[in-house]
Amino acid sequence: MALRGRSLITTQDFPPSDLEAVLARAKNLKHAQEYPKSLAGKSIALLFFNASMRTRVTFELAITHLGGTALVMNVGTDSWSLEHRDGVVMNEGKTEHIKDAAKVLSRYVDAIGVRCFPTMEKPEEDLADAVIMAFKRHSQVPIINLESSLYHPCQAMADMMTIQEKKGTLKGVRVVLTWVPHPKALPTAVPNSFLLAASQLGADVILAHPKEFPLPGKIVEQAQGNAKASGRLFRIVDNQPEAFVGAQVLYAKSWGSIGYYGKWSEETKVRTNYGIWKIDEPKMRSIPEAIFMHCLPIRRNVEASDAVLDGRQSVIYDEAENRLWAQMALLEALM
Amino acid sequence: MALRGRSLITTQDFPPSDLEAVLARAKNLKHAQEYPKSLAGKSIALLFFNASMRTRVTFELAITHLGGTALVMNVGTDSWSLEHRDGVVMNEGKTEHIKDAAKVLSRYVDAIGVRCFPTMEKPEEDLADAVIMAFKRHSQVPIINLESSLYHPCQAMADMMTIQEKKGTLKGVRVVLTWVPHPKALPTAVPNSFLLAASQLGADVILAHPKEFPLPGKIVEQAQGNAKASGRLFRIVDNQPEAFVGAQVLYAKSWGSIGYYGKWSEETKVRTNYGIWKIDEPKMRSIPEAIFMHCLPIRRNVEASDAVLDGRQSVIYDEAENRLWAQMALLEALM
Amino acid sequence: MALRGRSLITTQDFPPSDLEAVLARAKNLKHAQEYPKSLAGKSIALLFFNASMRTRVTFELAITHLGGTALVMNVGTDSWSLEHRDGVVMNEGKTEHIKDAAKVLSRYVDAIGVRCFPTMEKPEEDLADAVIMAFKRHSQVPIINLESSLYHPCQAMADMMTIQEKKGTLKGVRVVLTWVPHPKALPTAVPNSFLLAASQLGADVILAHPKEFPLPGKIVEQAQGNAKASGRLFRIVDNQPEAFVGAQVLYAKSWGSIGYYGKWSEETKVRTNYGIWKIDEPKMRSIPEAIFMHCLPIRRNVEASDAVLDGRQSVIYDEAENRLWAQMALLEALM
Repeated sequence: MALRGRSLITTQDFPPSDLEAVLARAKNLKHAQEYPKSLAGKSIALLFFNASMRTRVTFELAITHLGGTALVMNVGTDSWSLEHRDGVVMNEGKTEHIKDAAKVLSRYVDAIGVRCFPTMEKPEEDLADAVIMAFKRHSQVPIINLESSLYHPCQAMADMMTIQEKKGTLKGVRVVLTWVPHPKALPTAVPNSFLLAASQLGADVILAHPKEFPLPGKIVEQAQGNAKASGRLFRIVDNQPEAFVGAQVLYAKSWGSIGYYGKWSEETKVRTNYGIWKIDEPKMRSIPEAIFMHCLPIRRNVEASDAVLDGRQSVIYDEAENRLWAQMALLEALM
Repeated sequence: MALRGRSLITTQDFPPSDLEAVLARAKNLKHAQEYPKSLAGKSIALLFFNASMRTRVTFELAITHLGGTALVMNVGTDSWSLEHRDGVVMNEGKTEHIKDAAKVLSRYVDAIGVRCFPTMEKPEEDLADAVIMAFKRHSQVPIINLESSLYHPCQAMADMMTIQEKKGTLKGVRVVLTWVPHPKALPTAVPNSFLLAASQLGADVILAHPKEFPLPGKIVEQAQGNAKASGRLFRIVDNQPEAFVGAQVLYAKSWGSIGYYGKWSEETKVRTNYGIWKIDEPKMRSIPEAIFMHCLPIRRNVEASDAVLDGRQSVIYDEAENRLWAQMALLEALM
Repeated sequence: MALRGRSLITTQDFPPSDLEAVLARAKNLKHAQEYPKSLAGKSIALLFFNASMRTRVTFELAITHLGGTALVMNVGTDSWSLEHRDGVVMNEGKTEHIKDAAKVLSRYVDAIGVRCFPTMEKPEEDLADAVIMAFKRHSQVPIINLESSLYHPCQAMADMMTIQEKKGTLKGVRVVLTWVPHPKALPTAVPNSFLLAASQLGADVILAHPKEFPLPGKIVEQAQGNAKASGRLFRIVDNQPEAFVGAQVLYAKSWGSIGYYGKWSEETKVRTNYGIWKIDEPKMRSIPEAIFMHCLPIRRNVEASDAVLDGRQSVIYDEAENRLWAQMALLEALM
């Protein structure tokens, strides 16, 4: 496997066959009576620049289930604030350089997980995924992406596992990723990684969002390339009715657009007009064969109604559960 | 046992015989050479909305001693802020609904511990114990109360164990719970649960507080009902001299009263007048057979003098230690 | 060993032979195939009043590697804020007394690690190492210093191990501890403990700093006493060129001086003039036999240049790694 001993920044770095092998292993682990002690004697540091619930719990648990040791640290409060720019004169706020943190931790642990959301202020830094790439550049052990500025590959793997579980396969399944309303402008890591993984693994992908909320061009191009390579569909539309036709999976997620960096009050006004993108029962009834997915946390009755989330088509808790199994399989593959 | 597989919100939900069995088991564990691996393969998430020292350490340790995995999380910093009201449109501050957090965690762990102090602002919410009850409503695994708005059953069980240890029994032991001064208005969970458990287990209970600081009526009624059921004493008095007569246990604790919600400056003035309720050596000498108890943390020389806390009648460290043993026994009973 | 069952506040409390035994054991552990379960069944609480990266990770890992249980707690956020002054009336900000915290934790765990930086406001408190000494006074189990106001003995032991590793011995090795620039006035614990341990273990010690930045007199006297006892050199100079002659070890560290307490704006002005004390390549080339050491975190291109830190003389990552091995050996010796 190409994954062995490598850093996991985005699924796009690995061939679909590797991802499929991980999904198969995740399914086995989910139904296993006992967990193999695949990480016995191994330690993994989990660094959180941002809050986390599912990722934190499932990584700590996945590592422990496999017999390893998880060390959880909130960056900047538990530990020092971290500078990512190489070569700078560090006479301002940041206390330690990621170069040193990564090289030091490499002496202690066998892998380093990093959660680092985008700044939502500096487009170049965010598009370069500057923080996690600094870790990757300087670490001597694999870096595992726990959601970076651009990618959330572990979420995407759990999402793919869930679709496979519910639809029997990913090949040719019609998945619709739709923008939904939210009181805040959110990162794009989840939709980016969903698009990439789904197109890598042979789903037909429809992306729906108001025209003001495109995903990063580089991601869209990669997803288009994936679709072309596997002979599958990749389309972008600017309305839900067109997108929903024939949907077998409806993936709801909100995000802000990089075009509004530095102009958030303007974005808020635009966003306010798109309350109609909320997912409600009539919409779900119009696609009776579709499962409803969301990575959580979700703003209930803003992104989707209680009735949808608690309804028969919703698989949000299976999806959250699969974080654990997908990550156990990923950890086994990486280490 | 009625406890098996249930949530532990308040001791009042369980028959005294169950509580007695837990106390007997706690005593055995305290004197055991080795701990049974009763929680092997089990994981428990411990969610803290508020600070904790004893509860945090003893739960993490109790779980580990019994072979289980403890996952500790500070809500709102480590993880997302949580909404408890069902059906609301979540377009304000709270990021995730307890419904989703509880249902997701139920997929990962075998029980969820929750510490959630009262708001001290919204009387209805606090009297309904809204946050922990939301967890109980939505969780598919047992909820363990690590101190909620209304109850602190694990503290109460350690308190009962300590009285039994020092006095040989709980039946007919004369316990006095007295309000003491404090620079802040505190929650009532500890005195509430102490009253309930002591009256459930057959102690004679005297409650002493300035007339402005009644405990919640519902709790007092339950304690009265318990006393009646077991044919024991339950009395409320508004002064210490009357309360202290014949005391075998003096339990000191400060609390604010729900009557002052929204009027805390007024409460501060009233509270200031009651410095005389502090426990000092002369008071302890007047009840030479009594042990002195407090749940800690305590404001030294405000609630009670150093001489009392460090004196021969004080059992505060035994009481704190018993948190560990009582909780190990509770965990075994619940899971 | 004198260390057994004792608190580790400063290396100065123990005979050099004990420290040497620990270093020898650390070296063995570093090259061991497997770790002995020396802490099986033991638990250690790690209390952090301040941020930490290396200390936190290596202690948690050292304890886990040796089969013990580590309980990590941030004081004042995870747990209550702590008062250290005996006898005070606790009606202000602090919620719990260290007396109670230490005595309670002594019932739960087998040792307590404490990180407590100086106030940088109250010279008497800082020079008395008031917080950690309160823990030592009240605890019934060993206290392990994770960096206090005055000392960082675990760092010093890792430093000594590193010198021994790189130079074959500590006896007669010429070590130069030099002040370097930094945007903030830092504590003196690291240089204090380095001076003490190096002089205890027979190195020749040169201390270089601008005349405005002396280390605490008591520490300097102890180091002088150590040097006299072992017949080694201890000198203080106020410039780098004189200090660097014949250096085999260059230890760079910044610190503020107690003389500036309450006058930090004045100190900032003075400090700004000493940018020339930064370590750069020409300086390192002038002492080609010397290794470059720093405890980290380091302000790159302020304290020392990237070229020095990443250059062939730098041993900063070995030094950081040795924290783990030195602490495993210390834990074995103490418990």
